[in-house]
Amino acid sequence: MNICDLSTPALLVDADALDANLADMAALLPGPRLRPHVKAHKTTALARQQAAVGHTGFTCATVREVEGMAEAGLGEDLLLANEVLDTRRLGALDARVTVAIDSPETLTAAVRGGVREVLVDVNVGLPRCGIAPERAGWLADEARAAGLTVRGVMGYEGHLMLLPDLVERARLTEECMAKLAAAHADVGGEVVSGGGTGTYAMNTWVTELQAGSYALMDTAYTAAGLPFRQALTVLATVISVTDHVGSLPGWAVADVGLKALGMDHGNPSVDGQVWFVSDEHLTFAPSEPLRVGDRVRVVPAHVDPTVTLHERLHVVRGDEVLDTWAVDLRGW
Amino acid sequence: MNICDLSTPALLVDADALDANLADMAALLPGPRLRPHVKAHKTTALARQQAAVGHTGFTCATVREVEGMAEAGLGEDLLLANEVLDTRRLGALDARVTVAIDSPETLTAAVRGGVREVLVDVNVGLPRCGIAPERAGWLADEARAAGLTVRGVMGYEGHLMLLPDLVERARLTEECMAKLAAAHADVGGEVVSGGGTGTYAMNTWVTELQAGSYALMDTAYTAAGLPFRQALTVLATVISVTDHVGSLPGWAVADVGLKALGMDHGNPSVDGQVWFVSDEHLTFAPSEPLRVGDRVRVVPAHVDPTVTLHERLHVVRGDEVLDTWAVDLRGW
Repeated sequence: MNICDLSTPALLVDADALDANLADMAALLPGPRLRPHVKAHKTTALARQQAAVGHTGFTCATVREVEGMAEAGLGEDLLLANEVLDTRRLGALDARVTVAIDSPETLTAAVRGGVREVLVDVNVGLPRCGIAPERAGWLADEARAAGLTVRGVMGYEGHLMLLPDLVERARLTEECMAKLAAAHADVGGEVVSGGGTGTYAMNTWVTELQAGSYALMDTAYTAAGLPFRQALTVLATVISVTDHVGSLPGWAVADVGLKALGMDHGNPSVDGQVWFVSDEHLTFAPSEPLRVGDRVRVVPAHVDPTVTLHERLHVVRGDEVLDTWAVDLRGW
Repeated sequence: MNICDLSTPALLVDADALDANLADMAALLPGPRLRPHVKAHKTTALARQQAAVGHTGFTCATVREVEGMAEAGLGEDLLLANEVLDTRRLGALDARVTVAIDSPETLTAAVRGGVREVLVDVNVGLPRCGIAPERAGWLADEARAAGLTVRGVMGYEGHLMLLPDLVERARLTEECMAKLAAAHADVGGEVVSGGGTGTYAMNTWVTELQAGSYALMDTAYTAAGLPFRQALTVLATVISVTDHVGSLPGWAVADVGLKALGMDHGNPSVDGQVWFVSDEHLTFAPSEPLRVGDRVRVVPAHVDPTVTLHERLHVVRGDEVLDTWAVDLRGW
């Protein structure tokens, strides 16, 4: 099939860019050194590619992601790297499920849901989830007393991912990981989990890195100096063209809007200048004249929330559609 | 059922606010004077409520919305108020389908797809779709020569919807509608379609108003002086609480993030101060101390792109869940 036959807007993944990203990361962090985060693509077929290059443990952000990975037969070692109170669906899954805890309440919820293994989530500097490092050992003791296996610690230095200064990013990563190491000394267990695409090359302290964005990549990560290739675009059709009106230069309108693009990092990029984005429209001044019916490829400013808006993802090489994958981990 | 039993994040619609919004609009613009826009809620069950108060013609933004409305038996008079080239699925629907055209290409696509009725979409000032007013008559002639029925014109003054100065908004609406009236004189037909929630009270020129947001409402429309009530919130669970770290005051984290909130209008509102939003987290300083497990209601900054992120919408009165509706018009 050719991309001309696709209804638009349509998510496209460049097969060669994806393959290169997966191979490059697997070379640096082989097998269990990487625990790919599925939140970045929400697609079990893509996770299967990551498993094929050696990573069989995965990171998830939602119960639905854990559930879908288990149903897809990818449940060898699933980490729900997030606090969760509604654990009803976790215990019965045909998978090895480990859950992050950072409080007595999340500990109790894990027990109640039939979860057997946990990591203690440690706050290493990002003001979000995670227990204070000096209290991690106490929570681990409580968890073991409640019958849980404590596999170790996790801590996410998310506030450092896009720091432009690489030296500063590395220095602060070391500071964060020193906190995690201190907590680990108190908690025990073999797992020290953390990091992301932005710190993949400098976070040498974790036993497993939780990177996700590296597979499809983000323009913000490219700007932050990451070497992975932009693999994801949104294909759109030009549905209206106006030459010019008074002093306004000409513009084109493509059928991709707020409901097909993650907008929290701002407007997408296209060959030309973006004017504004509406629910189902992108209005822009194209670099070269366009005609109604032309196809354009739009690069979203943030990949993760873009993928979650689409039902499927088309794997392409040039204009040829090689495969179509369901984005089957959406929802909660 | 009580909202405590819902998995979070969950879309909530306040039944009383919704009913009041529907009744207030129907009183001002009864029956066919309003053609509710389904893009604002993407929910056929909600459209059915709009039909119950008298509006049986609907506005759609996508082929999928037209298709879903037809399948739900709400196809008495569906307007696809958008340019579309991929018309393959439109002709065979069991519904009266009218499509907007603004170019020879969209005209040809309508014929090719088996569409029988069109409106000429006129650019009234918003730089997006629509033919120049002075060329509308020509396109109507072409459409009739191709065997299509031309029902009239449409023109959307979208750039005026949120203008804070009501007098200016009214004056500019009149200017836009004068352009639409001139085009209508050349095009003919009984329909003059346009307007939106922001101009519902002042656009007295259209024969049918295309408002959608009035049903669930948006904080931006409330700020712009619209009298409808905020009916939509997102229910979230507090999953982590931190007292304070160094000089940072305490914060809470709720399980609602970029994948559950339309972010193009900025951060959501919550009882407290929002710090930042991550994929699955909202980090904020709450007004009153919160505990892990507490539920909070978050008001998204933009309703339309928020709704499209959710599979269902729970109709509530206080903490009681009265009904659950599928958001069944998502996708394309």
